[in-house]
Amino acid sequence: MARSQFHRWAGISLIRVEDGEVEIALEAEEHHLNLLGTLHGGIVATIADTAMGLAVRTRHEPGATHVTGSLQVTYLSPGRPGTVRAIGRAINAGRQMGYAEADVLDDSGRLLARASATFIVLHARPEREGTPPP
Amino acid sequence: MARSQFHRWAGISLIRVEDGEVEIALEAEEHHLNLLGTLHGGIVATIADTAMGLAVRTRHEPGATHVTGSLQVTYLSPGRPGTVRAIGRAINAGRQMGYAEADVLDDSGRLLARASATFIVLHARPEREGTPPP
Amino acid sequence: MARSQFHRWAGISLIRVEDGEVEIALEAEEHHLNLLGTLHGGIVATIADTAMGLAVRTRHEPGATHVTGSLQVTYLSPGRPGTVRAIGRAINAGRQMGYAEADVLDDSGRLLARASATFIVLHARPEREGTPPP
Amino acid sequence: MARSQFHRWAGISLIRVEDGEVEIALEAEEHHLNLLGTLHGGIVATIADTAMGLAVRTRHEPGATHVTGSLQVTYLSPGRPGTVRAIGRAINAGRQMGYAEADVLDDSGRLLARASATFIVLHARPEREGTPPP
Repeated sequence: MARSQFHRWAGISLIRVEDGEVEIALEAEEHHLNLLGTLHGGIVATIADTAMGLAVRTRHEPGATHVTGSLQVTYLSPGRPGTVRAIGRAINAGRQMGYAEADVLDDSGRLLARASATFIVLHARPEREGTPPP
Repeated sequence: MARSQFHRWAGISLIRVEDGEVEIALEAEEHHLNLLGTLHGGIVATIADTAMGLAVRTRHEPGATHVTGSLQVTYLSPGRPGTVRAIGRAINAGRQMGYAEADVLDDSGRLLARASATFIVLHARPEREGTPPP
Repeated sequence: MARSQFHRWAGISLIRVEDGEVEIALEAEEHHLNLLGTLHGGIVATIADTAMGLAVRTRHEPGATHVTGSLQVTYLSPGRPGTVRAIGRAINAGRQMGYAEADVLDDSGRLLARASATFIVLHARPEREGTPPP
Repeated sequence: MARSQFHRWAGISLIRVEDGEVEIALEAEEHHLNLLGTLHGGIVATIADTAMGLAVRTRHEPGATHVTGSLQVTYLSPGRPGTVRAIGRAINAGRQMGYAEADVLDDSGRLLARASATFIVLHARPEREGTPPP
């Protein structure tokens, strides 16, 4: 993540990496809030997607990469300024598709959202060299 | 949107508002990209969520507001730096729940993602005064 | 479920009911399979939806009922003829919306699918008497 | 569909097949209803999944087949006994993944549900012969 302008800009930092499980955090500031003063749904989706993608990456074969195929988020409680964490878990890592889930939590451990995502696995040569994501 | 720090920070501008349909745009820059050099899934989710929420808002009864209940995005093509647009359409506006869909397009009109969202409608007093979103 | 023609027709039976968690089973027969010989995606969705709805029901206030607002299923392994179980868990039970998740498993405990659903809670009178689901 | 025990059992018939678009119908009877007397969410999911899968199939390369990867349904109006139709449309047909959407309508044309699904494309030999769906 040190190489990622996106994560710096978004304010995301890496907390913990285990086999199939990754935790990240975001310091929610004023510019992450919507007009109701709660955490914007897009920010919640972003940290969930990021945590799940990193979790799936811990299960990749060497040389493989992935793109998000679909993302689903259910919002359960409004988020407020402060530390927000996302814990991503790889549930399934197939050769063509990965599946992960995430919890998004506030600093008291309250569940703000549950998310899931499918990931399309891209293999390096020989069979798909140069193939763009579908 | 002029009042929204979030939209300024994210780089989102309003293009068109009609009854039940809203179009917004984002200038995708380096910090919106992932390590593969394509538009981050969280950014796509953010502009889709924003366009759908604004579309649902055009159908609200006076005094009502809403929060996103769930968000679903399917990624169809990788986005690149340049103008990205999201067109949100309110499909259903009930008293308790709204439903909307969005297209996310690049500047050549290529479909990058399709999204849908449910919104929980919050009514002003008297019956739910002060009730936080569920 | 004894009152439900649907459950009899579908072949669903109730295994276990706890506070917030319900397990059901289906004997998968030839007519539940698709042309590839695996369990039809609609059947998997049906037992997941049923288990989640029953789990949410264990958390209702007296007089409340619900309808499914949205249903999301990710298919992880193909199902075969034999006993298939769905375990539904109520994650969140708000006044307007409930949220649940389900595992669908085969008789060896293999995870066939993960599902989630939102439920719109309908309250008996006085405030919504006679209001049809949105 | 004539070869499918599932479709006979479920009561599904084929109405119309075009390139990328397929319409099917179900005669909703008592055993398709839930205890509120409205069409069971699993039945709506089943006909949506079926229509989308058939729509994607019209775009397959020779020898390819598919399995549903994920299914998402949003319920907009309660269904009643009578003819229910699902119109599936293939939105994207990639080499690894397909994406489709569906409308579910009652006999007056009222929109009962909107659905989307991703499909994992399975290619016949040589590269994946005998590989089970992931």
